Amino acid sequence: MFKLLFVFAVLILSSNASVQDFCVADLKGPESPAGYSCKSVTKVTVNDFVFSGLSAAGNTSNIIKASVSPAFAAQFPGLNGLGLSAARLDLAPGGVVPFHTHPSASEVLLVVQGSITAAFVSSANTVYLKTIKKGELMVFPQGLLHFQVNAVGFNSVAYVFFSSSNPGLQITDFALFANDLSTKLVEATTFLDEAQIKKLKGVLGGTG
Amino acid sequence: MFKLLFVFAVLILSSNASVQDFCVADLKGPESPAGYSCKSVTKVTVNDFVFSGLSAAGNTSNIIKASVSPAFAAQFPGLNGLGLSAARLDLAPGGVVPFHTHPSASEVLLVVQGSITAAFVSSANTVYLKTIKKGELMVFPQGLLHFQVNAVGFNSVAYVFFSSSNPGLQITDFALFANDLSTKLVEATTFLDEAQIKKLKGVLGGTG
Amino acid sequence: MFKLLFVFAVLILSSNASVQDFCVADLKGPESPAGYSCKSVTKVTVNDFVFSGLSAAGNTSNIIKASVSPAFAAQFPGLNGLGLSAARLDLAPGGVVPFHTHPSASEVLLVVQGSITAAFVSSANTVYLKTIKKGELMVFPQGLLHFQVNAVGFNSVAYVFFSSSNPGLQITDFALFANDLSTKLVEATTFLDEAQIKKLKGVLGGTG
Amino acid sequence: MFKLLFVFAVLILSSNASVQDFCVADLKGPESPAGYSCKSVTKVTVNDFVFSGLSAAGNTSNIIKASVSPAFAAQFPGLNGLGLSAARLDLAPGGVVPFHTHPSASEVLLVVQGSITAAFVSSANTVYLKTIKKGELMVFPQGLLHFQVNAVGFNSVAYVFFSSSNPGLQITDFALFANDLSTKLVEATTFLDEAQIKKLKGVLGGTG
Amino acid sequence: MFKLLFVFAVLILSSNASVQDFCVADLKGPESPAGYSCKSVTKVTVNDFVFSGLSAAGNTSNIIKASVSPAFAAQFPGLNGLGLSAARLDLAPGGVVPFHTHPSASEVLLVVQGSITAAFVSSANTVYLKTIKKGELMVFPQGLLHFQVNAVGFNSVAYVFFSSSNPGLQITDFALFANDLSTKLVEATTFLDEAQIKKLKGVLGGTG
Amino acid sequence: MFKLLFVFAVLILSSNASVQDFCVADLKGPESPAGYSCKSVTKVTVNDFVFSGLSAAGNTSNIIKASVSPAFAAQFPGLNGLGLSAARLDLAPGGVVPFHTHPSASEVLLVVQGSITAAFVSSANTVYLKTIKKGELMVFPQGLLHFQVNAVGFNSVAYVFFSSSNPGLQITDFALFANDLSTKLVEATTFLDEAQIKKLKGVLGGTG
Repeated sequence: MFKLLFVFAVLILSSNASVQDFCVADLKGPESPAGYSCKSVTKVTVNDFVFSGLSAAGNTSNIIKASVSPAFAAQFPGLNGLGLSAARLDLAPGGVVPFHTHPSASEVLLVVQGSITAAFVSSANTVYLKTIKKGELMVFPQGLLHFQVNAVGFNSVAYVFFSSSNPGLQITDFALFANDLSTKLVEATTFLDEAQIKKLKGVLGGTG
Repeated sequence: MFKLLFVFAVLILSSNASVQDFCVADLKGPESPAGYSCKSVTKVTVNDFVFSGLSAAGNTSNIIKASVSPAFAAQFPGLNGLGLSAARLDLAPGGVVPFHTHPSASEVLLVVQGSITAAFVSSANTVYLKTIKKGELMVFPQGLLHFQVNAVGFNSVAYVFFSSSNPGLQITDFALFANDLSTKLVEATTFLDEAQIKKLKGVLGGTG
Repeated sequence: MFKLLFVFAVLILSSNASVQDFCVADLKGPESPAGYSCKSVTKVTVNDFVFSGLSAAGNTSNIIKASVSPAFAAQFPGLNGLGLSAARLDLAPGGVVPFHTHPSASEVLLVVQGSITAAFVSSANTVYLKTIKKGELMVFPQGLLHFQVNAVGFNSVAYVFFSSSNPGLQITDFALFANDLSTKLVEATTFLDEAQIKKLKGVLGGTG
Repeated sequence: MFKLLFVFAVLILSSNASVQDFCVADLKGPESPAGYSCKSVTKVTVNDFVFSGLSAAGNTSNIIKASVSPAFAAQFPGLNGLGLSAARLDLAPGGVVPFHTHPSASEVLLVVQGSITAAFVSSANTVYLKTIKKGELMVFPQGLLHFQVNAVGFNSVAYVFFSSSNPGLQITDFALFANDLSTKLVEATTFLDEAQIKKLKGVLGGTG
Repeated sequence: MFKLLFVFAVLILSSNASVQDFCVADLKGPESPAGYSCKSVTKVTVNDFVFSGLSAAGNTSNIIKASVSPAFAAQFPGLNGLGLSAARLDLAPGGVVPFHTHPSASEVLLVVQGSITAAFVSSANTVYLKTIKKGELMVFPQGLLHFQVNAVGFNSVAYVFFSSSNPGLQITDFALFANDLSTKLVEATTFLDEAQIKKLKGVLGGTG
Repeated sequence: MFKLLFVFAVLILSSNASVQDFCVADLKGPESPAGYSCKSVTKVTVNDFVFSGLSAAGNTSNIIKASVSPAFAAQFPGLNGLGLSAARLDLAPGGVVPFHTHPSASEVLLVVQGSITAAFVSSANTVYLKTIKKGELMVFPQGLLHFQVNAVGFNSVAYVFFSSSNPGLQITDFALFANDLSTKLVEATTFLDEAQIKKLKGVLGGTG
């Protein structure tokens, strides 16, 4: 019996040799609109499916008293093509993740320490605002502006998960002020005052 | 021969009675994540697939000297579920479509009159800026901040097309200032000065 | 200026009235292959986007010394159609989430307390096994068999996130033994011994 | 042990009560761009997932000496939303399935009796033509014109499978000649001679 | 403050270095079912997102008195993977875009000069026919046969937009008559007369 | 006339040179999450779209008295990216395809000889069981456990079709017992007895 079954096993196993259950990112191969190239299955190990980079707190010694540590496909290759990714948020007292969007993903936030006030704004300009406690979840629908603010006097920590392995991250302040877009065009397209724009360009390293 | 073929024709036609080539929006039926319910095929006419609402200029007698007229599935029911929609932009001299995003669609712009300066900003905060002339196209990838400004001293007109029948439209200024989000939270999450925020809240009808 | 801008604001807002940024599940409406029907936007509140059901530990006083608490679209309606959902795993000492699959989603696991030994098996029958500590992530590609076992002598807790708002959950033991599929057919299609099948059918409440 | 496990079983089973593994078509409910509404799970039986309508030969006593019997979601409700459907082709000697397309699906053909000459034409107007014997497969990429012709002097039978539960079927001759499109417009848009058009309109029951 | 914020900015920017907001086509790299390979972001400029090739009229000195100028991903690399593309139609008096399909895209037509009579035919062989004026839109659902005819005595111009960056284009006449498919097989699969087929093969350069 | 039309034909043909109607797998190129790289169109022939490997019976001289012969994209390159694939099942008397899943595809089964008893189990652990005769179809929704057993005293043959060109195949017995997963972990995660596990590991070549 063993012999016959062995024949069967080999047959099935070899027919499976080319099956693509996953596509661990080969960051050096060509990219396609569907993501990174796949690493050869023979080189894949369990470590491609495990990520330890979010276990330590990020550095919050900065102006926003916060940090965002990504675990997208570029950092965590096992996620490539699976429609999921993650990030860790650390918010010191007073910490803020400023208004931002993820161009191609919805997000679910899980508070694991402290408490976080978060909101998103819909296309109809309605604000959906709530303070989320440890163990609670909040969802931010795809592409909409949202922010997170520490709601307590000690460090808060959250993990966020995205519906894409490459969700993108566009922080509104950085998009408006941290590049060479002329003050005149920023003024015309945001209705902000010139002085305000120049001030933020100065702080964020923008020019023009 | 006619008789036999007629039999065949009836057979095929009846088997096709339930085929769903399209799903014209029934705006009063239940909505699903995939879009509006489908209008009964027996009530569908060619007029469901034609839209005249963008043939006239929009009203630009407003603070932005511009108008955006949508032809999304809600206005143009034949688009429902087909992954496409449109809008018309009218820009008077000095006209501006302020910084905005479409949460779930990429956009292609076609200038049909005048000339328009447009830009989008990537997640890496790079600005892709160009003045587009009549007959030229520009593409804005999904979910990224972009704007359009009239580049000439007379009316410019453009049509834009989206990769979704419900692309959404989130104008950054409106999302930040035209609702009841408290000045304090806007300040914390945008780094704008309090006076600036209160000024724009006043102009845009926001409170708090 | 206020007056003109107000006109503009009203115009944009009304054109947005029908925009579908999200589709909060109306659990009583018809379902489609894309998910639940959408609740009317006028009835949506921030509470639809927040879920507190995973903040408390699940009951692990059972044979597997573990619990799985879902936050799928049926429990957390704001997730409907957004391609994301979550669950909480509580594992007492010796606790096990037995071999199972999610028929239509990949999964990312985040350990928030303790340590968990997890593995998935590929189509080529390779085992990808690792013990995951607090703050670490592990990804389980779509549809593949996997399990989680508590790796420490105290309670471990993890949150898992899925690439679908309705990922499904098929526990192999329950699928094989907790129904009326005849012992003879289970035997023929699993190669398990009759006595083994009858024993597990007994434990799990199966018949036949 | 039984008692504890029973608690667990009930817990898991009830949490699964709302899981959507499938969406059997309720042909009387509202349709969405994603397909038919789902029949209540409590009314679903195995017969929804089985279809006997293709086991008998179709009637080939017609001008094309062939028949096409569909098993799309409208006929076979269990397919709804699963991205698959089927049809049976019966070709008497001289039988032909004329040039046609499936607007939203690719097709795989399996010959189960006889032999069939089939071809598709690419966008570059290249013809991919082959005679397929019993047990062989041929694939027709999405939306491209293709035909099937009986290659032997006795009945041939094939089953075809589609990558959509509603693939559609547009037979070019019927689209051109079996409706009220004016002869003048058909002439202008096909370069066929007026006499040829009028002849085929006559045969196929078209007017104008 | 500047120093701290600068640290933050660098951190975020570098984490974004691998984000894939877009995938400009590298026409020389390998293609995947999802489209062309992505050009390195460091080589991408705004010109990849702008296309001027449709600003001039196409040459209508041909038998159809019309021209179709594509702006698909192959011509306009910035569109790659974004689910959108475009084309320009020029129709001289009497000009016709003959019956054709796009195998994998729906289409929206915008008339920018003159007037165009257009129609599509559904799977149920119903004709949806309308004359579209300047500024009006018409949508053609995916994969269905359609045509456009100049409705006025002077040049008409339209732009069309597709729900794919590679929509394909299959002109029925060319598919049937501009290749080496034998007259006998064309006759059998279209019911056209042999003389008609030979005539059109002659005109369109077909053989056999 | 010929000359002018010829100009037109050349123009259209060349504009189509880059159109991607299909993406025949180049098994040696890089893979992406969307499938294999595309073979150059100039090297594609009709043979890429035809597969003869399923016309002969598989070898059933093995312990399961059955064989599964795949026609996935790796075996049948023309299927790549088209969302379809196939396999042939041969079941000798007493033959069984044991419990298995396809991680990323739904399946339709067509019996072409004999009779087959098949079942799938839902997430709610309900069994959908039926004996399918020649010419009948049965559908197995994505990712759910299912099996097929010969229902007659002679050879039965079926063809199955999948909603993916790479559906995967995970046979539960092989996943549990044909690798190096320790007996202790299998015991903990399946509730099977140690002796049972060791017996099946022995038969299937597993270790540990």
